[in-house]
Amino acid sequence: MKYRISANVIKRLPRYIRTLDSLQRDGTEKISSSDLSGRLGLTASQIRQDFNCFGGFGHQGYGYNVAQLKKGIRDVLGVEELLTAALVGAGNLGRALMANFNFSECGVKLMAAFDTNPEKIGCFVGGVEIMDAAELPRFLKDSAPDIIILTLPKDYADEMVALAEKFNVRGIWNFTGTDIESGLQVVEDVHLSDSLLTLGYYLRSSQNDDRERKLR
Amino acid sequence: MKYRISANVIKRLPRYIRTLDSLQRDGTEKISSSDLSGRLGLTASQIRQDFNCFGGFGHQGYGYNVAQLKKGIRDVLGVEELLTAALVGAGNLGRALMANFNFSECGVKLMAAFDTNPEKIGCFVGGVEIMDAAELPRFLKDSAPDIIILTLPKDYADEMVALAEKFNVRGIWNFTGTDIESGLQVVEDVHLSDSLLTLGYYLRSSQNDDRERKLR
Repeated sequence: MKYRISANVIKRLPRYIRTLDSLQRDGTEKISSSDLSGRLGLTASQIRQDFNCFGGFGHQGYGYNVAQLKKGIRDVLGVEELLTAALVGAGNLGRALMANFNFSECGVKLMAAFDTNPEKIGCFVGGVEIMDAAELPRFLKDSAPDIIILTLPKDYADEMVALAEKFNVRGIWNFTGTDIESGLQVVEDVHLSDSLLTLGYYLRSSQNDDRERKLR
Repeated sequence: MKYRISANVIKRLPRYIRTLDSLQRDGTEKISSSDLSGRLGLTASQIRQDFNCFGGFGHQGYGYNVAQLKKGIRDVLGVEELLTAALVGAGNLGRALMANFNFSECGVKLMAAFDTNPEKIGCFVGGVEIMDAAELPRFLKDSAPDIIILTLPKDYADEMVALAEKFNVRGIWNFTGTDIESGLQVVEDVHLSDSLLTLGYYLRSSQNDDRERKLR
């Protein structure tokens, strides 16, 4: 490992990459930390501090080269080093990921998907085959994916975590809606509800603000 | 608005609720901030500080009543005050939300979905009708939903934001993969890639740690 970076900084890196992507698309070659600050809603000093965690990338007063900065951040995230993944549960969400999610941009190759539904088995979605879930243990043993993507109902989460542990699958991208606790694995729990609850909070707050303004 | 709470605290509240839910399911009635701390990976003082933002809920040394604490946090988020939503784009992701996402737990009622595909129009998913996208403007005008959920390709994002602005839809739950900038609206951009990039970073780091250990 080249860098020891705090979890908070890591969480901001994908956002930096997205912003730099859109700058590149607009043909912007250089950007100052204060411009980036405006686009990201972070302070310029926060941004400089973040970039200093992994060695800078810019010179004070000269701004950052957008392409270099993006490459640098992608290097920190290690996306050039390909990881492999298997998806379990080819329901609507699973198929949405297979069809539309840009795995390769994240440095991940989706090798196969698994489902128990005979009508789905053998179908291809986004170029990836849906295989019989009964084949999953053999696949984990033979192909040793780095990541298992759980897009199946939460009742199966524990069983899948045990299976992943047994076959030494180190990463779990978890859409089951439960929090997976595993000392042996790296887990990212995706909770879409967190985002809707946050949206609702701000919406209700601003509506109440409006009402208060009207009452004054 | 009853409270002014920082964005960082708000972001942690859904996680508190999930943890309290699972404690309730296990029959736990009281919990100390240090127990919560262990479950959440936050310091006990951070947790006490968060709860103090909205008036406490506990007495030092006595722990928190799980049910009361959960209710208190749900009140802060305002989930008892129902918001309404319309979903645009009944593809795999849209249908996954319609079929499986627990909107009511988030204090939101999904009223209708919209799509351009004639084969989908008129179908019901999760009890919600998929209507003709051509009807969307009229629906926004007549039913005035609080939130529009964008589960359609990113090329349509700008058009939808403009439509939402026109009909005074204040909240946007955005799955298009672009960041929506809108001064008039409350936006939550969902970027699943952030989570996979973070997972990949920790996975690659820990693998490199293992390699280093083996080389020693």
